Amino acid sequence: MIKAAIVGATGYTGAELIRILTQHTNVELVCITSRAEAGVNVADLYPNLRGHCDLSFVAPDVRVLSSCDIVFFATPHGVAQSMMQEILAAGVKAIDLSADFRLKDIDVWEKWYNTEHQSPELVKQAVYGLPEVYRDDLANANLVACPGCYPTAVQLGFLPLLEQGVIKASSLIANAASGVTGAGRQAKIGSLYTEVSDSFKAYGATGHRHLPEIKQGLQNASSEPVDLVFVPHLVPMLRGIHATLYAELTADVDVQQLFEERYVNEPFVDVLPAGSHPETRSVKASNMCRIAVHKAPESNKLVILSVIDNICKGASGQAVQNMNIMFGFAENEGLQAPALIP
Amino acid sequence: MIKAAIVGATGYTGAELIRILTQHTNVELVCITSRAEAGVNVADLYPNLRGHCDLSFVAPDVRVLSSCDIVFFATPHGVAQSMMQEILAAGVKAIDLSADFRLKDIDVWEKWYNTEHQSPELVKQAVYGLPEVYRDDLANANLVACPGCYPTAVQLGFLPLLEQGVIKASSLIANAASGVTGAGRQAKIGSLYTEVSDSFKAYGATGHRHLPEIKQGLQNASSEPVDLVFVPHLVPMLRGIHATLYAELTADVDVQQLFEERYVNEPFVDVLPAGSHPETRSVKASNMCRIAVHKAPESNKLVILSVIDNICKGASGQAVQNMNIMFGFAENEGLQAPALIP
Amino acid sequence: MIKAAIVGATGYTGAELIRILTQHTNVELVCITSRAEAGVNVADLYPNLRGHCDLSFVAPDVRVLSSCDIVFFATPHGVAQSMMQEILAAGVKAIDLSADFRLKDIDVWEKWYNTEHQSPELVKQAVYGLPEVYRDDLANANLVACPGCYPTAVQLGFLPLLEQGVIKASSLIANAASGVTGAGRQAKIGSLYTEVSDSFKAYGATGHRHLPEIKQGLQNASSEPVDLVFVPHLVPMLRGIHATLYAELTADVDVQQLFEERYVNEPFVDVLPAGSHPETRSVKASNMCRIAVHKAPESNKLVILSVIDNICKGASGQAVQNMNIMFGFAENEGLQAPALIP
Amino acid sequence: MIKAAIVGATGYTGAELIRILTQHTNVELVCITSRAEAGVNVADLYPNLRGHCDLSFVAPDVRVLSSCDIVFFATPHGVAQSMMQEILAAGVKAIDLSADFRLKDIDVWEKWYNTEHQSPELVKQAVYGLPEVYRDDLANANLVACPGCYPTAVQLGFLPLLEQGVIKASSLIANAASGVTGAGRQAKIGSLYTEVSDSFKAYGATGHRHLPEIKQGLQNASSEPVDLVFVPHLVPMLRGIHATLYAELTADVDVQQLFEERYVNEPFVDVLPAGSHPETRSVKASNMCRIAVHKAPESNKLVILSVIDNICKGASGQAVQNMNIMFGFAENEGLQAPALIP
Repeated sequence: MIKAAIVGATGYTGAELIRILTQHTNVELVCITSRAEAGVNVADLYPNLRGHCDLSFVAPDVRVLSSCDIVFFATPHGVAQSMMQEILAAGVKAIDLSADFRLKDIDVWEKWYNTEHQSPELVKQAVYGLPEVYRDDLANANLVACPGCYPTAVQLGFLPLLEQGVIKASSLIANAASGVTGAGRQAKIGSLYTEVSDSFKAYGATGHRHLPEIKQGLQNASSEPVDLVFVPHLVPMLRGIHATLYAELTADVDVQQLFEERYVNEPFVDVLPAGSHPETRSVKASNMCRIAVHKAPESNKLVILSVIDNICKGASGQAVQNMNIMFGFAENEGLQAPALIP
Repeated sequence: MIKAAIVGATGYTGAELIRILTQHTNVELVCITSRAEAGVNVADLYPNLRGHCDLSFVAPDVRVLSSCDIVFFATPHGVAQSMMQEILAAGVKAIDLSADFRLKDIDVWEKWYNTEHQSPELVKQAVYGLPEVYRDDLANANLVACPGCYPTAVQLGFLPLLEQGVIKASSLIANAASGVTGAGRQAKIGSLYTEVSDSFKAYGATGHRHLPEIKQGLQNASSEPVDLVFVPHLVPMLRGIHATLYAELTADVDVQQLFEERYVNEPFVDVLPAGSHPETRSVKASNMCRIAVHKAPESNKLVILSVIDNICKGASGQAVQNMNIMFGFAENEGLQAPALIP
Repeated sequence: MIKAAIVGATGYTGAELIRILTQHTNVELVCITSRAEAGVNVADLYPNLRGHCDLSFVAPDVRVLSSCDIVFFATPHGVAQSMMQEILAAGVKAIDLSADFRLKDIDVWEKWYNTEHQSPELVKQAVYGLPEVYRDDLANANLVACPGCYPTAVQLGFLPLLEQGVIKASSLIANAASGVTGAGRQAKIGSLYTEVSDSFKAYGATGHRHLPEIKQGLQNASSEPVDLVFVPHLVPMLRGIHATLYAELTADVDVQQLFEERYVNEPFVDVLPAGSHPETRSVKASNMCRIAVHKAPESNKLVILSVIDNICKGASGQAVQNMNIMFGFAENEGLQAPALIP
Repeated sequence: MIKAAIVGATGYTGAELIRILTQHTNVELVCITSRAEAGVNVADLYPNLRGHCDLSFVAPDVRVLSSCDIVFFATPHGVAQSMMQEILAAGVKAIDLSADFRLKDIDVWEKWYNTEHQSPELVKQAVYGLPEVYRDDLANANLVACPGCYPTAVQLGFLPLLEQGVIKASSLIANAASGVTGAGRQAKIGSLYTEVSDSFKAYGATGHRHLPEIKQGLQNASSEPVDLVFVPHLVPMLRGIHATLYAELTADVDVQQLFEERYVNEPFVDVLPAGSHPETRSVKASNMCRIAVHKAPESNKLVILSVIDNICKGASGQAVQNMNIMFGFAENEGLQAPALIP
């Protein structure tokens, strides 16, 4: 039984972490922080947790966090990097769900996040928490940078093809769509029910912060320079990311077989039978990524469809998967429940 | 480890049963029947179950069912009563999620379901599967009639008051609202997304089959004749029942305390603090019923708010709770996961 | 062609007013105010109005407003009462969509709105803008207090029965449900898509500001003292109010006929055939109220179902209907378009 | 005042046609056919039309249709082609909203629709009803093939670029998403609220019947061979199509200006300011198409965003626009109402 803390748990990824960890047999959740809600019962904010979590939010205190075995950061960017040095110095492992340690190139980070990085020296030791690529490194990691939601769905869809060099890396397109939880739990007019319900739109076509993260991951797997267009969209649904990926096939390979072999041992990647169209609800509230590969009719293009739950495999579920690897627990501990249909 | 079968599992209560039972440590699901889908993989119909259930639908066969320890019927009314004699004769326990054995008065049943009952002699031995009232009988039951969704939410809201005789039984109103899963998984125009989305309506104001079931339960708890108006409504959401109950208070009692005491030992009834308004999502995908009690302003009426997940506590979760009681398992086994927010 | 201004038009009732008035053949919209958005094109906030309205928001200026023939207030309570004296003094007619002039009893107003009324002397001259009751007074009104959304739906459902004295006025129940536009266009966490989607709840069971307004209207029509319980609910839909009304029938009358006769000449009240269940979408974006009356099975209670569009007949459409009466236009001018299905 | 008939008006495009035509000052709707619903009041199926349309459905009768000035076909493919010869021979103009006359190449039609075409000789005279391209031909047309919904949104987005030859025609991608009305009003499990709500998926990645229609239109505008990948998706919303189009820019042009000039005189195409992201709700229930153009960051690709209401500009609104042109009415007659927000 290890002791865990969550910093900044009022948002949806924080709530999802609590939901998962209350079911985890190896973890005791001992501290949940929020400056804004300090003193409030967690279950008053998230009534689904009544009877499952009797903690109250407390202001973050490094001494308390340092008495834990693992600290999760479910904070906006900037927070984890300001506290991480102390946490790690205390011998505590950390998983950061924010963007603070995802990009290896500090300049790129500072350009996209428009602020100075406060712990650039820690970036190098941070392991990118995509188990399907970095499982071995994660086993020994002290600091894990948990991937973004879009980057998870997009990379898992493109990686098998780039690793084998069978697509044209210089002409990739990632058309992705997210549920509204991706916008967080903040009082913004743009996220009101009355603004997003019964409608659909693209956003961030002029540039989205997940673009450099995705490109970094794809470039690592590719021997050719990667060019990527990434356009996210907003879907009137709670959870889920659906990535529709386009690439030009440059080799005569059985792509269905290629995907099946790449992910045959992965507990959380499910390659669907040829001809399938995964629905986001097929992964709702689960840590699974489901993928289907199509050859476009009358064309040489591939169409890859990849779905995850944005706050589970795209955030908190993946964080727990990382923790399981870091601590030698069964990789699927706490993550076995089927997705929710209907 | 007991062996379980589900008869008629293509609908949503069937799928919910499978979802729950795959997580139950004492149950092995060995047979899932459907005449229409015989030969089809269960996980092809419900892709969330990929990796969790590798059974295929089979046509129902009493010999196979008779080799199980428990058979669940998730069928339209009429099916369970046609097979039940044989099942019970084989020494197998049965839980019927349909309406076949809920009404003790055969005439009332035949009037509301407009057909002749095929096993009237079994009705008497059927135990009504509301653990909060019939827990002791359920422990020894061979045949359980699992309550309807509306009846569960409405009875749990009215029972504490009727049992104590503190409301006027002759003037009860149950205004209830259900998610669309309540209409089942049938190809009906009235259940299309395009017909129910972004709208709200009452239905069944001229008479709904849950009315006699609710009245039977309330009457059992009341020393005075019960008069009840019940109007169901359809909400554009997947799961959930919300019952808004109105009654005239006739005694000077602390109703908050009365509810808290009545349910203090119930694992699946949560009485909220005074002044609360339970949301259906606070019980989504969980077996919990959450209840709040209000005195209406400028009036002597009580307003009781009661929410459940219609296919969990209102059907399949309650069925598993009943099974746990029948077999002496921990009552919450398989039912511990928190509800899903967001 | 009269000149119209809207004060405080950034919210949904303001936007609905603009949408309707751009189609009105007798009205030129000349001024739309908002302190917060002054300088912003109206069509930038509401892109549906591109090509239909080329005004920008301006800060409110009484001189400009005084040059109009009619001023609509689509503001929070407190604003209209602070500007009304000057507006009326300038000989301009005004329609207030807020609550400022709805309650005749100033004490009741001040209790429920928890602030001092700034123009109590104007309350008496304000005509309550429910044309189905006050049409004659409206024709000569200078100041109209446009009814709230719930009060419109509830009163239209109860009035025919109270006017005829055929129900027990001391035991009325109004169970109502609203779409999320009823919460306004404010950045509140409770109105986020992620908080209200796929869920249903009651709110305001401890007291809602529409209660005294409804009771005032019902009492005016009743010779007996009215007792009313009113519980509003929140539905995950954009527009619409559905009122489910319960009353005890005390006379032997044909209630279907009673309703049909009461509303036979009303252009915006549609009494549905016996046995009907009106859907809110049947009035979406229209000024119609549709009503059905049921006798509850096995009971002496009546169930009346009444639906309107909360921001049309429940606010801006009704305001235009009032304006049409005040200026002698055809009562349905600008309001002829059918509701939107699907 | 011309007389109009609608063949097959039980579906959503039929209902939308009725909704629009009841507001059209030059049209009298005299006949609405449906074999399945013959004898039923139109307003019983679509209660929003109560008070606006008092016709009943009748079985189709060529003599009756031949007494009209215009006949709309809102039927599944195969119907219009079986009746068209007689209709046209009677001197009646026809607008077919189905796919029967859209494809000029009969072989391609027969391949994709998997049946023999019954009136191939009429295909040549049919004018493709996209006014932005064929306005002059439409003015003299007797038979108009109204475009599909996806083809309208995709063509309007790509055409300005292809006409000017500034993109690489051999590498086009159209990633599109539709509301559920696109699936029609048929009792299919896949269209149930419980199957599509709170989820998102691609469909038809293996081939969709709109692909050849889109390619035909794009090829007509391009001097180079067109290669197109088209992947449609299903969004949990009622109406709307959102097309996200990708193309490689091959010339140094101001694409914003190019779009603005191309559509400057088009009443129903609105080019948004640079940097915009059109929402489908901005065209809900309107005949408008709104388009935004982006250069993808760190890439030479263009991203064009194009939104329409699938059953208005994508079907019935466009049909009325075509009718207006054919009969010399104002092109926007009956189509002036702003879109519906919220």
